Amino acid sequence: MEEEQSPRLAAGEPERKLEDGVTDADAEDPGCTGNAAMSSLEQPLLKRSNTLTASHLAMVGAKVSHIESLDYEIIENDLFKHDWRRRSNVEVLQYIFLKWAMAFLVGLLTGVIAYWAGFLYFAGVNFGLTFVAAVLCVVFAPTAAGPGIPEIKAYLNGVDTPNMFGAPQLIVKIIGSICAVSSGLDLGKEGPLVHIGACLANLLSQGGSGRHRLRWRWLRYFDNDRDRRDLITCGASSGVCAAFRAPVGGVLFALEEVATWWRSALLWRTFFSTATVVVVLRGFIEVCRDGRCGLFGEGGLILFDVGDVAVRYHAGDLLPVTIVGVLGGVLGALYNHVLHKVLRVYNLINEKGRAAKLALALAVCALTSAMLYLTPFAVPCTPCDPAFGGACPTLGKSGNFKRFNCPEGHYNDLATLLHATNVDATRNIFSTGTAGEFRLDSLLIFFAVYCVLGLFTFGIAVPSGLFLPIILMGSAYGRVTALVLSRFARIDHGLYAVLGAAALMSGSMRMTVSLVVIFLELTNNLLLLPITMFVLLIAKTVGDAFNPSIYEIILDLKGLPFLEAKPEPWMKDLTVGELAAAKPRAVALQVVERVSTVVEALRSTRHNGFPVLDRPRPGVSELHGLVLRSHLVAALRKRWFLPERRRTEEWEAREMFSAAELADKCGGGVDELEISAEEMGMYVDLHPLTNTTPYTVVETMSVAKAVVLFRSVALRHMLIMPKFQGPEISPIVGILTRQDLIAHNILVILFSISLNV
Amino acid sequence: MEEEQSPRLAAGEPERKLEDGVTDADAEDPGCTGNAAMSSLEQPLLKRSNTLTASHLAMVGAKVSHIESLDYEIIENDLFKHDWRRRSNVEVLQYIFLKWAMAFLVGLLTGVIAYWAGFLYFAGVNFGLTFVAAVLCVVFAPTAAGPGIPEIKAYLNGVDTPNMFGAPQLIVKIIGSICAVSSGLDLGKEGPLVHIGACLANLLSQGGSGRHRLRWRWLRYFDNDRDRRDLITCGASSGVCAAFRAPVGGVLFALEEVATWWRSALLWRTFFSTATVVVVLRGFIEVCRDGRCGLFGEGGLILFDVGDVAVRYHAGDLLPVTIVGVLGGVLGALYNHVLHKVLRVYNLINEKGRAAKLALALAVCALTSAMLYLTPFAVPCTPCDPAFGGACPTLGKSGNFKRFNCPEGHYNDLATLLHATNVDATRNIFSTGTAGEFRLDSLLIFFAVYCVLGLFTFGIAVPSGLFLPIILMGSAYGRVTALVLSRFARIDHGLYAVLGAAALMSGSMRMTVSLVVIFLELTNNLLLLPITMFVLLIAKTVGDAFNPSIYEIILDLKGLPFLEAKPEPWMKDLTVGELAAAKPRAVALQVVERVSTVVEALRSTRHNGFPVLDRPRPGVSELHGLVLRSHLVAALRKRWFLPERRRTEEWEAREMFSAAELADKCGGGVDELEISAEEMGMYVDLHPLTNTTPYTVVETMSVAKAVVLFRSVALRHMLIMPKFQGPEISPIVGILTRQDLIAHNILVILFSISLNV
Repeated sequence: MEEEQSPRLAAGEPERKLEDGVTDADAEDPGCTGNAAMSSLEQPLLKRSNTLTASHLAMVGAKVSHIESLDYEIIENDLFKHDWRRRSNVEVLQYIFLKWAMAFLVGLLTGVIAYWAGFLYFAGVNFGLTFVAAVLCVVFAPTAAGPGIPEIKAYLNGVDTPNMFGAPQLIVKIIGSICAVSSGLDLGKEGPLVHIGACLANLLSQGGSGRHRLRWRWLRYFDNDRDRRDLITCGASSGVCAAFRAPVGGVLFALEEVATWWRSALLWRTFFSTATVVVVLRGFIEVCRDGRCGLFGEGGLILFDVGDVAVRYHAGDLLPVTIVGVLGGVLGALYNHVLHKVLRVYNLINEKGRAAKLALALAVCALTSAMLYLTPFAVPCTPCDPAFGGACPTLGKSGNFKRFNCPEGHYNDLATLLHATNVDATRNIFSTGTAGEFRLDSLLIFFAVYCVLGLFTFGIAVPSGLFLPIILMGSAYGRVTALVLSRFARIDHGLYAVLGAAALMSGSMRMTVSLVVIFLELTNNLLLLPITMFVLLIAKTVGDAFNPSIYEIILDLKGLPFLEAKPEPWMKDLTVGELAAAKPRAVALQVVERVSTVVEALRSTRHNGFPVLDRPRPGVSELHGLVLRSHLVAALRKRWFLPERRRTEEWEAREMFSAAELADKCGGGVDELEISAEEMGMYVDLHPLTNTTPYTVVETMSVAKAVVLFRSVALRHMLIMPKFQGPEISPIVGILTRQDLIAHNILVILFSISLNV
Repeated sequence: MEEEQSPRLAAGEPERKLEDGVTDADAEDPGCTGNAAMSSLEQPLLKRSNTLTASHLAMVGAKVSHIESLDYEIIENDLFKHDWRRRSNVEVLQYIFLKWAMAFLVGLLTGVIAYWAGFLYFAGVNFGLTFVAAVLCVVFAPTAAGPGIPEIKAYLNGVDTPNMFGAPQLIVKIIGSICAVSSGLDLGKEGPLVHIGACLANLLSQGGSGRHRLRWRWLRYFDNDRDRRDLITCGASSGVCAAFRAPVGGVLFALEEVATWWRSALLWRTFFSTATVVVVLRGFIEVCRDGRCGLFGEGGLILFDVGDVAVRYHAGDLLPVTIVGVLGGVLGALYNHVLHKVLRVYNLINEKGRAAKLALALAVCALTSAMLYLTPFAVPCTPCDPAFGGACPTLGKSGNFKRFNCPEGHYNDLATLLHATNVDATRNIFSTGTAGEFRLDSLLIFFAVYCVLGLFTFGIAVPSGLFLPIILMGSAYGRVTALVLSRFARIDHGLYAVLGAAALMSGSMRMTVSLVVIFLELTNNLLLLPITMFVLLIAKTVGDAFNPSIYEIILDLKGLPFLEAKPEPWMKDLTVGELAAAKPRAVALQVVERVSTVVEALRSTRHNGFPVLDRPRPGVSELHGLVLRSHLVAALRKRWFLPERRRTEEWEAREMFSAAELADKCGGGVDELEISAEEMGMYVDLHPLTNTTPYTVVETMSVAKAVVLFRSVALRHMLIMPKFQGPEISPIVGILTRQDLIAHNILVILFSISLNV
């Protein structure tokens, strides 16, 4: 059977061959002959279809050769001749020019390739690594692309960002980040490490991933939003700590940039996490000290140590340092602005599908490889300092001096900076006592290269961090400033690189205290602290004058409903009652409700909470509390129905529901439930399921105050009560959620109303 | 006239002389003869009254001599002889023994004084300085005694601590702190500096002190509780920054230990304050670098620099480091416990009046001087290291080696530690590369001395800080641990002193991140960070197992109503409705109210806020809002009365009241107002004065949630609304304030109720 089948498939079925693209080219080629009316310059004159099939069936099954012949003879039919006649002189000239240009390019590229096998190897390896990272991100976990910090920030603000903290995200983030960083792309591992920490925290808190969770009792304690929030905060600070080996900086980063709510106990817990990170890192460093782990053991706890420089302050330094700060603010704001535009364009490209995403990533990779490899040719070689005896002391692969294309006794300073890992490049440019080592034009090219790469790399579909690209840019312009103003700058140029990096970070990310501490822990120079603070303050102030921080811009681009700490000024003039009136009326349930009404409420709305009312005696109504959708679904699923309208005893509910069941939010939809008509007529008692102490506001409360309350106490639902007391007044005016309090949404609601009226 | 008056006063008026204590002793002495029935061992047998008068009038006015004769002859009257006969043998022996003992003491002390003029000079100067500090505190600003940090903590929690942040406090704190630190007392300048920063912030925010305030418009903006809170937070962090030259540590201290509410903008502002402090300090250091300012220019930005030590981690160090941490926790908790007891005793003493306070301070000063001066005699002299050529290299007055009572070529190591300012002592004991320099017995004595002094110095009536005493104690036990376990301890002993200090701080004050950063900025050794974190975590955990932090203990002792972040567990089972029912009924006002009712409400209660109700149509009542007592008083003072019950227009109120008038809280009492009977019958319209958007809770809300809301949103009043809707139901159930939510007060209310029932 099997031996018979193959020849039949390969030779006997024309339709199948058509699908596989294995056919006689001339007979059915639509491009050449079939659609003559479409013939134009955009279409090739002569086109061949593929001849060598890629079909495995055909190749493996029968050894029939499908190789066809070529048409070197010009087929001078009418159409072809017409096309020749239609061509203008310009087009003919184009043709001739291109013929020669292509010949030139063939020669040039062959020569280049012969000469630059190194570049191809470099670019090829980078390409492969980027491909792996991008495919992982595109196929398995799209949310693992980017830094993940804005999503974590939104999560800790109370936004349930979907598919962010699962096992696929974790695995893709780890492998993808390794590949992306190794591929020489201009991105850091900080954001991904923060996300990795958060994923680990989430997986630990819920006892594993998806269906494979551990069902241990002591893990179930953490399977609630509140404990998970705290753990993810710990994870985020551990990530920063691991990235920069900055334990205090990590805690402060989580506090200043990531977390919305904070309490003293959490400070204590995150601190414990980062202390553990440091002890583990320290242990590995000790174990690997004597080179036992290859390249891994290198570098101590301090990444960019400039602690050996005695910083003395001179009045003359005030000018260049201030300029570094102001420029940092301006450049940071500009970076935010341009990155915003680039990300909008990238969003359009990425929406076109997986292939577009992949192509974008690979294109950026090719651009990166080309710029890193080719730009060093643009600068002349520098002779080594005679103090070293004419030969440059290259310290291994991460040394300060790269010979590259230079003769013996010379070095290429731009290659020194570009042909290194991002961390080594930073270390080189931060290195002190090297005022004359880098040329101004090299630094300017370096800055330009990393500006371009920093803008175009961030949005591609690989795990990427923003810190290191900004540090690289900032350090370059810091050193440039020092070189240009060298007659004023008395502090070491390496320290100017540090200051530039700090200023640009502050100008773009607008962090203060955490950045100071991170830089302190990165550079180990306490005496630099006052001047770093000064520069950061200037840069942040200048940056704030132009636009919001980069994370806020990304949050806004992603459309996450982030609740800002400060309400908009106009919110003071709007009451929550007015806001509730502009919304569809809230669906309220009675405390003992008909099943059909509950099902109807669940099916007709997507609300996650419903106010529960009661009518204890005639003429008097009562706001009993709030019931969650997931609890209603749980009650329906358990078919906890009562034939008559009565209040249940406490033990009845306790026998029915376990706390774990109620904590489970993934209860599924209401549509899957099959409830008979008889059951629809029965009752559900919501007494045991209702949260009787929801937070409430009076309808006259201003939206501004409501936002503060919502954010301060970390709410999901807020009930609005009437200010009036009397008969026939409903005890509930409305219900507000996060989405209702986002400034943009309020404006949409109010604006559409004024249109309708 | 004047010349005549003096003699008359001095000689002619016996009553006046009695008052001044200038009288004939034998005639009216009640102790010897008048109350013979009281004669006992407690009363002296022979007693003289003062003869030389201290009255300025008598001394200056007339040169009459009041010198009397003595009674060397034994007056053998009946009573005297009876007393002799009544004496037992034991008493006679006592008398004889004491006679000889006193003769011995007279000889000894004379000899000691001859030999130890140095001690007397030392003790005398200390005594004088302590006297100045204590008199200032006792007479002018009792609240300036102590560190002030607990009061600031309470203020930032929302407690209006009286007389804390005025000009007298500021001046007394500055002068008193200088005197107290100079007098060699075992106290630091950190707490006082924090208080000074807070006072400055307050005075700036209100534009000056008391009646001498600036009335500039742009200063009035800050004359409200909210802005003042932020400024005082800045002041507190600036204080810590100035004390330790630790800008980031200062911000974190304010964040972790002092402030209750925090937002990102405040982080940014406090950071700006501390940056300014550092730049100013740095400027002074630069100006004074070449010794132009005497002793002031000494020392750089880093107080206790141990940055030159390369810290390498060994597994063997784990044991002593863990012991340092555990001991730090135990000793810290013990310190808190004993200090609590001492402070209770001191409170009893201080309540006896100003003289008792003064005597206590001077007694502690004498004790301090004696212990510091005398204990070095207890240890033997140590020969100088032969490496220095037989002579100890004493580095000026703050050098590591003090000769004291030792022969040439020797030094007294205990004197080295004790005969220095507190800061220099810390620097000496932290100094690295000095493992063999200090003897074990010297360190133990040092530790014991500072334990005693640290416990007994804190509560006296001078400005005092807790940081430095604890650092001194901790450093001693850290070094002791290293010496005892020297076979395991491979890290430098100076670093063990640092770790000990950190552990004891953490064990007593229970701070974490801020302490790590402060120690980092104090010692400039980033490599020490992981091990410091480890030790701090252990010490805090151990300490928390025993008792609360020292600041919480002091807050509790002072009886300040501090609202804890975490409500008590039993608060979950109590609703605010139940709590309100246990209180006296809230006094509510109608929105247009009779003057007499308003006056009655103000006079009969001390509430600071009143709910305002309305009755818009028959059968319907409305919770209109909340009006502050100060605004009611302002309305009464302006006599803003209406003859009939009507609602005023907005412009009427705006013409009447300026925002500045309403912001002024010092409006005075209601008793001073004189309102005629006719006015009493008129009406006040509360519409323009009422805050129509107060925060509310429903009566079913648990007290635990209410506490969280109260603290999170920083409230003063919280209104309780009914959960029922219907006719004849009041729209307000009650009103809760800070005092109502303090756990202790709730228990008192509930307990007294259960007694009544």
